[in-house]
Amino acid sequence: MSGIADVARRAGVSKATASRALTGSTQVSDQTRQRVQEAAAELGYVPSTSAVSLATGRTRNVGVIMPRLNRWFFAEVLEGIQATLLRHGLDLTLYDARPGTEGRRRIFDDFLARKRFDGLIAVGLDPDDHELERLLRIGRPVVSVVGASADISIVTIDDTHAAQRATEHLLALQHTDIAFVGGGTETPWQRVDAARYEGYRRAMAAAGHLPRHIASPTSLPGGYAVAVDELSDARRRPTALVAVCDEVAIGAIVAARQLAIPVPAGLSVVGIDNHEYAEMFSLTTLAQQPRDQGIAAAELLVSTLGTAAAAPVEHRLEARLIVRNSTAPPAAART
Amino acid sequence: MSGIADVARRAGVSKATASRALTGSTQVSDQTRQRVQEAAAELGYVPSTSAVSLATGRTRNVGVIMPRLNRWFFAEVLEGIQATLLRHGLDLTLYDARPGTEGRRRIFDDFLARKRFDGLIAVGLDPDDHELERLLRIGRPVVSVVGASADISIVTIDDTHAAQRATEHLLALQHTDIAFVGGGTETPWQRVDAARYEGYRRAMAAAGHLPRHIASPTSLPGGYAVAVDELSDARRRPTALVAVCDEVAIGAIVAARQLAIPVPAGLSVVGIDNHEYAEMFSLTTLAQQPRDQGIAAAELLVSTLGTAAAAPVEHRLEARLIVRNSTAPPAAART
Repeated sequence: MSGIADVARRAGVSKATASRALTGSTQVSDQTRQRVQEAAAELGYVPSTSAVSLATGRTRNVGVIMPRLNRWFFAEVLEGIQATLLRHGLDLTLYDARPGTEGRRRIFDDFLARKRFDGLIAVGLDPDDHELERLLRIGRPVVSVVGASADISIVTIDDTHAAQRATEHLLALQHTDIAFVGGGTETPWQRVDAARYEGYRRAMAAAGHLPRHIASPTSLPGGYAVAVDELSDARRRPTALVAVCDEVAIGAIVAARQLAIPVPAGLSVVGIDNHEYAEMFSLTTLAQQPRDQGIAAAELLVSTLGTAAAAPVEHRLEARLIVRNSTAPPAAART
Repeated sequence: MSGIADVARRAGVSKATASRALTGSTQVSDQTRQRVQEAAAELGYVPSTSAVSLATGRTRNVGVIMPRLNRWFFAEVLEGIQATLLRHGLDLTLYDARPGTEGRRRIFDDFLARKRFDGLIAVGLDPDDHELERLLRIGRPVVSVVGASADISIVTIDDTHAAQRATEHLLALQHTDIAFVGGGTETPWQRVDAARYEGYRRAMAAAGHLPRHIASPTSLPGGYAVAVDELSDARRRPTALVAVCDEVAIGAIVAARQLAIPVPAGLSVVGIDNHEYAEMFSLTTLAQQPRDQGIAAAELLVSTLGTAAAAPVEHRLEARLIVRNSTAPPAAART
């Protein structure tokens, strides 16, 4: 394998000059840099990353912290981030910071302190005060997807507004007995769940209706199990559901079908996401594009790498209403 | 922030000795190492990873390449890998090598050559010859999850055997008109799909029945769309399906419900996976534990880091049959 000495010899420069040319130093003329880069390419020479990092103070690496990987939203965000970093020639180091685990504690107290990245993207992290302080103390740019902090740049949808619009869609169809499914299984609530419940509550209050909350894990089987129980009691069954996300909404639709409750004739369901399964379940939903959120977060981070600390920015993406066949007027309004 | 000079001063040694003590060099006495480590701990000093890497030739980082992130199997494997690496104090750098993309080409031709990792885990990669040659040329240990190569250690289930057992379960219930759903939408077939189809074909041949293949994308909506079309034609409808994976199987069950075909009375369905949705759809399946595969692959890789090239090993995990309520004798056998 070729070393820096071979590259220098072929380009007819000193080792020091070859090294400077390849690490992007400004002390080398463009002409020399080109000659060295050509020599490196011809020899198939790839500089040792450790050496480049020491010379430049840059790792060419971005850390991504997320509380879970096996959910549609997080996987989509991650793919958007990965594609963007790849385009910029940056590596992605992944930190799986599941809440309440020893692993999460080690990430914040040990891994982050190593600073093996030029910047960080935190996805749906809901950091506590200690964790937030750790994040800020590392002195690298941080961009958050979901989550909220006055000190960190953020890419997100307006969760409260999205849930408010979902609820208003059902109110416009003449529903009055509308329950919110999701959140409330953890204390405190996940920030996203709380923001969406608040949007639902506001829309209900503005229409003069009492809110009703059905706690549910944020997953398809979780929504299914809760809905089987709630929907099977005809005396208590609402005419419509606002689900905290599409996975919970789809779980509720599968439960309704199992109970022979027709959707939308006997039950309307609206979600938030536009999950990849939304179309096959004809789910009305407020669509967000998590992949685009990942791309936007990565672009925002890349633009700030190596620059002086900039003021945090907030980048809000719009959630759009898609009406499919899971929502209709309630039976009472149709007679 | 404290530097190595501060640590050296506090420990009463030279900078060179302090550096050697912290990078694990054997040229330092245990006593000195302890003094330096205590000084570093007191000052909150974390060594620059780049400097440690240059000094030790180790990156404390493992690369993970997978063709996609947003599928249950891959997310579970990744979580198993991540948890294991974290326990060993190793970082995880993720490479999303979607087939046929410019990103994948860059990963193999550029990113891997940088060698920013001590070893690699390749998950379901199906590398072509050029890519395999690149993998082997980097001279770092590689462990594969799924995939197959005589040159690389591998952690996997026996896909052919799993599909054979799934088919034999249906044959034992007296089904004869059994179709295989999945694979065949790409050329060449994905290796896993081909291995599972082969298991189905063998079981059918041994029982003297003709195989029948229904091509399908490997996804829940893909299986749904294909099954809606195939199952709606009562003249051609098989009495049972072996699905290439649980996502395709669940798509087929949802399709059957939409078409008012009762499962299992009118159609039996068996999958391979034991996906997190399998239970709520009462799916009979050959269960694999992708999280355990991720853990096993990471442990295997960690055990070989820094050692001389060892002979490739093959670690096969067993797939277990779980019978739920998606399989029953065909109507003809019950009358």
